[in-house]
Amino acid sequence: MNLMERRLQSKNNVDLKSYLHEKRSIVDEALQACLPEPEGPASDVIKAMRYSLFAGGKRLRPILCLAGTESVGGIHTDSLSIACALEFIHTYSLIHDDMPVMDDDDFRRGKPTGHKVFGDAVALLAGDALLTEAFRLMATAHLTVDITPQVLLKVIALISQAAGYRGMVGGQTVDIQSEGKRVDISLLKFIHTHKTGALISASVASGAMLGPANESQIEAIKTFGHNIGLAFQISDDILDIEGNSETMGKEAGVDERKGKITYPSLVGLSESKRIQSELADAAVESLQAFDHRAEPLRQIAMYIIERSE
Amino acid sequence: MNLMERRLQSKNNVDLKSYLHEKRSIVDEALQACLPEPEGPASDVIKAMRYSLFAGGKRLRPILCLAGTESVGGIHTDSLSIACALEFIHTYSLIHDDMPVMDDDDFRRGKPTGHKVFGDAVALLAGDALLTEAFRLMATAHLTVDITPQVLLKVIALISQAAGYRGMVGGQTVDIQSEGKRVDISLLKFIHTHKTGALISASVASGAMLGPANESQIEAIKTFGHNIGLAFQISDDILDIEGNSETMGKEAGVDERKGKITYPSLVGLSESKRIQSELADAAVESLQAFDHRAEPLRQIAMYIIERSE
Repeated sequence: MNLMERRLQSKNNVDLKSYLHEKRSIVDEALQACLPEPEGPASDVIKAMRYSLFAGGKRLRPILCLAGTESVGGIHTDSLSIACALEFIHTYSLIHDDMPVMDDDDFRRGKPTGHKVFGDAVALLAGDALLTEAFRLMATAHLTVDITPQVLLKVIALISQAAGYRGMVGGQTVDIQSEGKRVDISLLKFIHTHKTGALISASVASGAMLGPANESQIEAIKTFGHNIGLAFQISDDILDIEGNSETMGKEAGVDERKGKITYPSLVGLSESKRIQSELADAAVESLQAFDHRAEPLRQIAMYIIERSE
Repeated sequence: MNLMERRLQSKNNVDLKSYLHEKRSIVDEALQACLPEPEGPASDVIKAMRYSLFAGGKRLRPILCLAGTESVGGIHTDSLSIACALEFIHTYSLIHDDMPVMDDDDFRRGKPTGHKVFGDAVALLAGDALLTEAFRLMATAHLTVDITPQVLLKVIALISQAAGYRGMVGGQTVDIQSEGKRVDISLLKFIHTHKTGALISASVASGAMLGPANESQIEAIKTFGHNIGLAFQISDDILDIEGNSETMGKEAGVDERKGKITYPSLVGLSESKRIQSELADAAVESLQAFDHRAEPLRQIAMYIIERSE
């Protein structure tokens, strides 16, 4: 069944655009409340945290978290703090990735990157502070909503595992060490599943855990997350070739100029699209035991491989 | 009562040297078990994490955590994971502080710093990974020992607050922005209490919370921690003038050459020593309601202002 067929067959079509817009507003509002106005001697680090946090992100990870909660019948407000923490972690990773010692990028989403505005030292510290604060947000989440401390600790463990050397940081390490070297498809898959896939997968899984989901639901959601995580990064590779710089807010063709190995450069564009589509199919397939409340997740799987930004 | 009098009056004198040695061995062994042998595509980041983690630290923060637990009648094994996490956080902060974009130090404890061995990118990522893994260690601590999830979440919240922009990262931000600028005593106190004091204070307080301590004990321990935290950083300033490079494993006189403002440069050496002694007195005083089990903490307060490394 291809994408178009899935769309037509869906009995509970939600308007994904409205859904993403609504959830993004909820996340943005919650993020605003997570940090104080910059004041006091250390105000610059708060400014730098806020600058990168509100530089126009799509909020994909927090939305996946909220959708994960709703997919098993939970209420999205229960997972809002965790959703915000995921965006804090994603933002810290972008700040550090953009630094001169890493990818050395001057622009992201059409805006100067953190270190261009605040200098390398404050940018580094703002990244550190966002990562640290993410865990404070999580460790206090149960004080205002209906989450058990046991489940919350499981969520913190899952997210820290996905963000650390076993996940995102591990993937980033291999990515940075592979520039200009021969990379085969299995190593590229390692980079993609770790650097991007792990946190995306943890986002939707943590949301479901807070539902709370039962064990088999969590397993299904993890499979879903694993598949869309890899699909997302392949779509990033494809967008770098086919994308419009204006829509994306960053230059297209950067990967090729930097000599970065991507799925299209290794297996070709059409094979990349085939793999991507297969991953989206597998993601949707993994949710077959879920009812209409998982419809946003199913549609997000399709959106990820069709997106233009 | 001065230091010598306090020593003579102590009815429960412990051999601090043996105590520190014993606890340091326990911490070192536990730290060894926290990270796997480096293998797989991302093995370099694990190597870099291990390199800095085992570069000869005194393990002050973990020992304070264990001593905090014991001071209220708890068992040190219950807080060992948290103690290790504190050393992970301390080590990450050193790796990032030493980087060229920050303090640009080539040596620490007589060894080349992380970025000199592994390069800037992997050092940055190793710091990120240590910070992230610290929270995974904490979020799984209750699975093997007798800690309630509620108390554990309080501990994670306390430590993340102390390590983040409200604490250590905030202090580091102001420190780096103050180089070569006029700094008055109140700003210097802000830097010292945040950059170093906050995590030291959280180390002993988290240990006590795991005891578990009651509210008034926690308050007393926080006062203790606040005082020794500041005393520790002032003793660092003093050691930079009076210390022996060989004993310390780093050059003396660095602060002055870098134009860093310190307590001795602002208020003079003898006044700095007087303040330091006053802080140690206040620290010991705050533990007056504690019995002999707090004796190691009392002696650590004295050790901090008399140390030579």
